[in-house]
This record gives sequence, structure tokens and C-alpha cells, in this order.
Amino acid sequence: MKAVVLGDGELKFENNYQPKLSSSEVEVKVLQAGVCETDLQLVRGYMGFSGVLGHEFVGIAQTRKFAGQRVVGEINCACNDCSYCSKGLQNHCPQRTVIGILNHDGAFAESVSVPEKNLHGIPDNVTNDQAVFVEPLAAAFQIPAQIDLSSFNKIVLLGDGRLGNLCAQVISIDNTSLTVVGKHPEKLSRLQSLGIETALLSEFDEKQSADLVVDCTGSRNGMEAAIQIVKPRGTIVLKSTFAGQNGPNLAEIVIHEINLIGSRCGPFETAIQALAQKSIEVDSLITSRFSIDEAVAAFETAKQKDQLKVLLEID
Amino acid sequence: MKAVVLGDGELKFENNYQPKLSSSEVEVKVLQAGVCETDLQLVRGYMGFSGVLGHEFVGIAQTRKFAGQRVVGEINCACNDCSYCSKGLQNHCPQRTVIGILNHDGAFAESVSVPEKNLHGIPDNVTNDQAVFVEPLAAAFQIPAQIDLSSFNKIVLLGDGRLGNLCAQVISIDNTSLTVVGKHPEKLSRLQSLGIETALLSEFDEKQSADLVVDCTGSRNGMEAAIQIVKPRGTIVLKSTFAGQNGPNLAEIVIHEINLIGSRCGPFETAIQALAQKSIEVDSLITSRFSIDEAVAAFETAKQKDQLKVLLEID
Repeated sequence: MKAVVLGDGELKFENNYQPKLSSSEVEVKVLQAGVCETDLQLVRGYMGFSGVLGHEFVGIAQTRKFAGQRVVGEINCACNDCSYCSKGLQNHCPQRTVIGILNHDGAFAESVSVPEKNLHGIPDNVTNDQAVFVEPLAAAFQIPAQIDLSSFNKIVLLGDGRLGNLCAQVISIDNTSLTVVGKHPEKLSRLQSLGIETALLSEFDEKQSADLVVDCTGSRNGMEAAIQIVKPRGTIVLKSTFAGQNGPNLAEIVIHEINLIGSRCGPFETAIQALAQKSIEVDSLITSRFSIDEAVAAFETAKQKDQLKVLLEID
Repeated sequence: MKAVVLGDGELKFENNYQPKLSSSEVEVKVLQAGVCETDLQLVRGYMGFSGVLGHEFVGIAQTRKFAGQRVVGEINCACNDCSYCSKGLQNHCPQRTVIGILNHDGAFAESVSVPEKNLHGIPDNVTNDQAVFVEPLAAAFQIPAQIDLSSFNKIVLLGDGRLGNLCAQVISIDNTSLTVVGKHPEKLSRLQSLGIETALLSEFDEKQSADLVVDCTGSRNGMEAAIQIVKPRGTIVLKSTFAGQNGPNLAEIVIHEINLIGSRCGPFETAIQALAQKSIEVDSLITSRFSIDEAVAAFETAKQKDQLKVLLEID
């Protein structure tokens, strides 16, 4: 079958891919998949991944509980046996594989193998386009799962890209004192149209002004800006990673006694419910669509600064 | 008067220093002062400081409330007027100067000027040697002021130097599951003699094993080790800073959803009380003594790996 494979730092389209399927997994015929910033980082060498990329997807389960139904899948494939799993922390299972990211083929293929436990059904009033956003939207909902957003007087979110937009919409549910700071007027105007305050980074000069800074930039510069913008004794939530050896010097984290919180995957059911209730708007984030045969071009497009979500239409 | 001055990256002994004294400050004749890792970092360019170094000291107040008595001084000189000061966060006042670190001359001089509000009297049963440790010991007590140490099952402290030793003693009061990991058998044996478990870094291979890691290394390598040793969803307390542009990549902070907490200056009264009650042992940490005239040699000695606290005897 068709698949988009990363190997030796190179992205290739393949015609003769055969996914492995373990006894606990369900074959999911992929309908659509989304290209994520993490995919672009993986191509640049992040995590040293090789295999089929893709971890944002909607498809049709072929067997078991959800057979014939539309599903999305949590990406962390846990052992369900260790001390983390027994505490409900499957997303941190040290033995886990991660679909399309770590030792497990992903969804940029006609079929992806997903542990049955990881599957979630999609309600009829959530379209395929919307369902592709469940994984990144769940990651955005991980922020309120970790911290009480209503306790912060002033929040700044850095990054107006795919993940930044979703996180901004999620934060706005609990706290209206949010300003999104980005580099792209077009992307910021999308947030303005949702009633969210925005500022251009080049015009934003409020150092040590925010009680909470959420970094969704996927860049070292973004982390450095977060450290500059947060108040002493404030909180930084890091949502995004980047490839490369060096991060910012953390001296100011110590001097200003800043609390830095890493934040990754989140609750799928919360995200599905938000899409079903139309409390999060995702349709306007889709800026391009490609067939799986055009995957290499899709990645090139996803790198462009004017793009938000690039979809692969697989079936 | 005599003073140890840092200027253009060079440390010099001066004979004709005259300290400035503002209307809110008290002149303190310095008896003894300690050389801290931060002093060594300042000489390497950290903070871009120039002026008289020294922020760990005991002396005799010359005027006002404590006139004629032995005192130590908090190092953050706040405006007492801003939103931080009004919340009791004088240590984070954006207008503050910091004695011997930021825009305020320090205590490696025959006299240091200290805001009256910053002074604390020293009980008779605390010696001058011990009183020099109040400032770094207060920094160690900032850890239990920020987090509940009893809530962690396994704690690893990285660094067997001056600050590491004090932090280890403070942590041991609340939690006996502490292991101090360091590079120096001699320094580790001092902690063993206090009943604290230790391990050599070269023999410590417990990745993702600790619920809490406290980094007292003052090095980038130490921060990287902390990220390796902490469990997913664990906590890292950063106690030490270092000069230089680059820190570790923070991808694993995100992936493992680690909580990183910067920790700096702490409660002086808690530290004074602990010294008065003999619950913290500091006398054996003094490895060398110099007169102020020998300050440059004292700094060279403080850089040696076998040294813990180097004292300057000023009066």
C-alpha cells in the first residue's frame, strides 16, 4: 500500500508498504491525516525517527469494538503493565512506542495499526476535516489539565501557527486576558476574528509582564522570548520542542524563580467533545490539501510561513 | 579602605575604596565574608557586574537598631514601593540592586552599606564562621519554602560543592530518601558522615529514577544530568546558574512533562534559627582562610576542586 516514509533524513513516497499489526492492535484505514510541526522537526532529525510519519489522523476501524466506524487514535502505545501505566500515566510509559514518532509506523499510509485501547469513536456531527484536529486539540487541552488557567491575571501565548491557534482557543475558554504574540499578520487576524487579542512580535515590548507565558513557537528564540516576557515568579508552559543541541541559558529561570512546565499530549475525549459542541473552530485552519501521492510536496507546503494545517487526503 | 573590586573582567585588591551610603542604609564593618560560586561566575562575566564583590558576610552594624551588634544582611535591596514589594516579594523587586551582584557594592571590603530593613541580628551562640553561611543557607531553605519536600519518594541532589552540601542538609531535615551525586569522594564523604546517602556521578546510572532532582552544580552538564535523572512528570529545582549563552535543549522537559522550578534567595530567619539550634553543620565546610589583602589568591583557591568554603577575614 501507499505510505510516506522517513529514512536517512529523507522523505519518500512508497507504493509497497505493509504495516505490522500486533495482537492488541486494530487496522485503521486512514481517511485523512494532518501534517504537524513535529513531523517537520522529525524530518530535520528530531528523535532520530525512521519509518512512516503521521500522528494526526481519522480513519475507519476494520475490526473489534469500532469496526466500520470512524475513529481517531491516541498516539502513545503503552505497555499497560508498568508503574506509570498503573497510575493512569500511559502517555509516560517508558516502554511506549509513539505512532509516527517513536518505533511505531504512523498514519501517512493507507492503513495504520493502532492499539484498540487508543481508539476513540467520532460523533456524526464532527467532519473528517475536524476529526484530524483531535490529536493536536487534545494537546492544547493538556494545558488546563495541568494548570488552573483562571488563576492567571495576564496570559501571553507565543506562536500563531497550528498549535498556537488551537492553544489560544482553548485558553480563551477559561481566561479572556490572553494576548497571542506572533510574526504573521494574516495568522493573527484569524485569531482576532475569534475575539482573541493579538500583537506582532516586532511591536510587542512588554518584558516581565505576563503571569503565564505559553510557548508554541517550536523555536529556541520563542523559549528565550518566553523567559523575557514572563513576570518573576511567573509560569511558562512549554508546548513545543525543536531539534538541535542548545537551548536558552536558564539563569533567569533561577533568578526570577520561574516555574517552567512541559506539556505534551492531552485528553482526546475533551477534544472530541469540544469539536462536537463547536466550541473550537478548526475548519478555517486548513490551508492546503494533497493526495498521499503528493506527500513530499505537502511537506514543502507545510513549511511555508503562510500555511496552517496541511491535510493529506488518503482515501 | 581595603576592598576587592571586579572591573573589566579582572579582580583587583584596592586600598582606597570609599563605599557609598544611602539614607536608608546602615554602614556595616565587615568581620568575615565567604567566597561563593556566584562570585566565581561573576568574575567569568556573569551578570556583567563591576564593583566590590561579596554577598556572604557577617559584620558589626555602626548605626540604628542594631548599632554595635553582629548582623548579617539580605542581599536584595528593594524599592519597597512596587507591586512586588507590596506582595512581600522584595527579592523580585524589578528596581532592586543586589549586594555584590547587581549595581550595589558588596562585602569584600572593610565596610559594606546595607539597607536597615535587610539586617538580621546574630544570636550569641552562632559564631562568626557560622554566620557567614546564613546567606547561602537561607538559599537552601528556599527549597522547602517553594515545594513540599515530604511529598517526593526519591530525591537526587546533583553537586557536592558549597551550595550542594547546604541544600542536602536542609532537604535531609524533611526527607531521608535523598542521594547526593557528585564528582568528589572527599566532599561526598563529608555528607556521608552526616548520614546522607551519596554516589559518584561516574557510578550513578539511574536514569528517570528520581521524583525530584535538585541541581546545585552550576554547570550546563549538571542541568543536562538533572533532565536525564528525573522521572517523567517529576520536578527539577534549579538552584545554580552559570555564565554562557547556551543551556540544554528542553525537548525532554516537554516530552516528559517535567516541572522545572527556579530557586534563589531564601528566608534568613529560618537559616539563623537552624544555625542557633545546631541542626545544620557548617564549620567543617570551611577549607581555607585568607586576609582581605590576599583576596586574589583566595579566589584562585576557591576555584580548586578540593575546596568548599573559602573565607576572607576582614577585621
